[in-house]
Amino acid sequence: MRIAYQGEPGAYSEAAALRFSAHADVLACESFDGVFRAVSTGKATHGILPVENSIGGSIHRNYDLLIEHDLPIVGEVELPIRHHLLALPGTTIEHVQRIYSHPQALAQCERFLKELPNVRVTPTYDTAGSAKLIREQALADAAAIASERAAQVFELETLRSDIQDYSDNITRFLLISRTAEADAAADKTTLVFSLANAPGALFKALSVFALRDIDLTKIESRPIRGRPWEYLFYVDIPVSRQDLRCARALVHLAEFARTLRTLGSYPSWKSRDAAAKVETA
Amino acid sequence: MRIAYQGEPGAYSEAAALRFSAHADVLACESFDGVFRAVSTGKATHGILPVENSIGGSIHRNYDLLIEHDLPIVGEVELPIRHHLLALPGTTIEHVQRIYSHPQALAQCERFLKELPNVRVTPTYDTAGSAKLIREQALADAAAIASERAAQVFELETLRSDIQDYSDNITRFLLISRTAEADAAADKTTLVFSLANAPGALFKALSVFALRDIDLTKIESRPIRGRPWEYLFYVDIPVSRQDLRCARALVHLAEFARTLRTLGSYPSWKSRDAAAKVETA
Repeated sequence: MRIAYQGEPGAYSEAAALRFSAHADVLACESFDGVFRAVSTGKATHGILPVENSIGGSIHRNYDLLIEHDLPIVGEVELPIRHHLLALPGTTIEHVQRIYSHPQALAQCERFLKELPNVRVTPTYDTAGSAKLIREQALADAAAIASERAAQVFELETLRSDIQDYSDNITRFLLISRTAEADAAADKTTLVFSLANAPGALFKALSVFALRDIDLTKIESRPIRGRPWEYLFYVDIPVSRQDLRCARALVHLAEFARTLRTLGSYPSWKSRDAAAKVETA
Repeated sequence: MRIAYQGEPGAYSEAAALRFSAHADVLACESFDGVFRAVSTGKATHGILPVENSIGGSIHRNYDLLIEHDLPIVGEVELPIRHHLLALPGTTIEHVQRIYSHPQALAQCERFLKELPNVRVTPTYDTAGSAKLIREQALADAAAIASERAAQVFELETLRSDIQDYSDNITRFLLISRTAEADAAADKTTLVFSLANAPGALFKALSVFALRDIDLTKIESRPIRGRPWEYLFYVDIPVSRQDLRCARALVHLAEFARTLRTLGSYPSWKSRDAAAKVETA
């Protein structure tokens, strides 16, 4: 198993890949597109993609890429996010004049950053990449907000730990693959559909689940390119595609949805996590 | 009327403010928070906020800020987005080694940027700010992706015009104010609500509109901080709060919503635009 991820070594996506499978090979990619490419071309067997953070919300680029490609979702991982302020050995908090990190990480440490009014905050494209920048350019007056693992990888010291505003900061990642095998442990399904632009269309679409007592664990809308103010709806339901209720709901939805596609049916992280706990108990 | 906007002069938000009212004073603010602050403190009578782009989707930060503040929505504006590649006079496309712009603008010009494989693309926090950077630092080997107005403001030349991937690229802005007057022309209402985490909860919520033949023109979910995988739902409906159907739907929704708030009831841009066309015809 070889899992492609976006970012530098030490990125949260790398940690998520290793959380999914501690013995997996990992492959760093520059961009989310690169992750999809690595899986499509067989350079990696799987790809890992952050899709949602409990504070910041959805990472829409990955929802868009899931549609553009035909790589099924085969699993999910939840990773608690802990941000640390990292700097070169010898740098103290008083030396820090600039802080680098990904905009999402900066937003998640807003309160901490407000306590440092004279520091210039610069958004970058990667948390671990910010740590790398400090090491490579030997920036003695700067710090990065990144993971503990990024500190190890780039030999930085932790000036402040757990600087995220909310302790309940979790990112959800999806695992994609080239082909989906029928997974007996699948208990979650991700769908995407579009609807006629008519009153009550979404209500009707949700009725196919509500009438069968199927909960929605997530609904997300994304614009359809070239059709302003029309949307694709992404829905997660906590049932396998093999489940008869799910199969019937999909047939029902197909009666009136303009388009309908199943992006994957896979074991949810919670069920997998619980199973792992039983195994190791 | 004095409208606060985020960005440098020449930003698309400034253009939206002037589109709403050609004779308004405008006030540049560094951040979206700054726009809310300017309106709260009375430095501006109104604020303008991009909330959704027809290609990139919602600008979530502004949805979050609408909740954190108590400044009602009093209007909306749609602005077609046309991106241009701007550089110092004398710079030709062959000279350009770096391109600066806001990540959304960069994403919207993906195809154009792919034709320039040797150019380094650097995300910044503002389209017009990128134009300003080129002028202030006299960068002869760089270009910015920004508006035509940014070219005028910072005396740059247009190397390529209309470089956005999709011609149907429109941003929707909301106008906020300190107080809402009852607006007889209001024909759109924005609501935000949260629901019990129970199967069918969203279906029930949408039924209060569907049962009264009220369409949803937009639905957006945002995470609730500190409660992972629970959401606030933002809904736009094309009726005034004064409309009896709307009033009844809200009373009905309040029966089971955990929280419910009306963010504003205001004339939609389309109705305003149509009225303006009739007036000038």
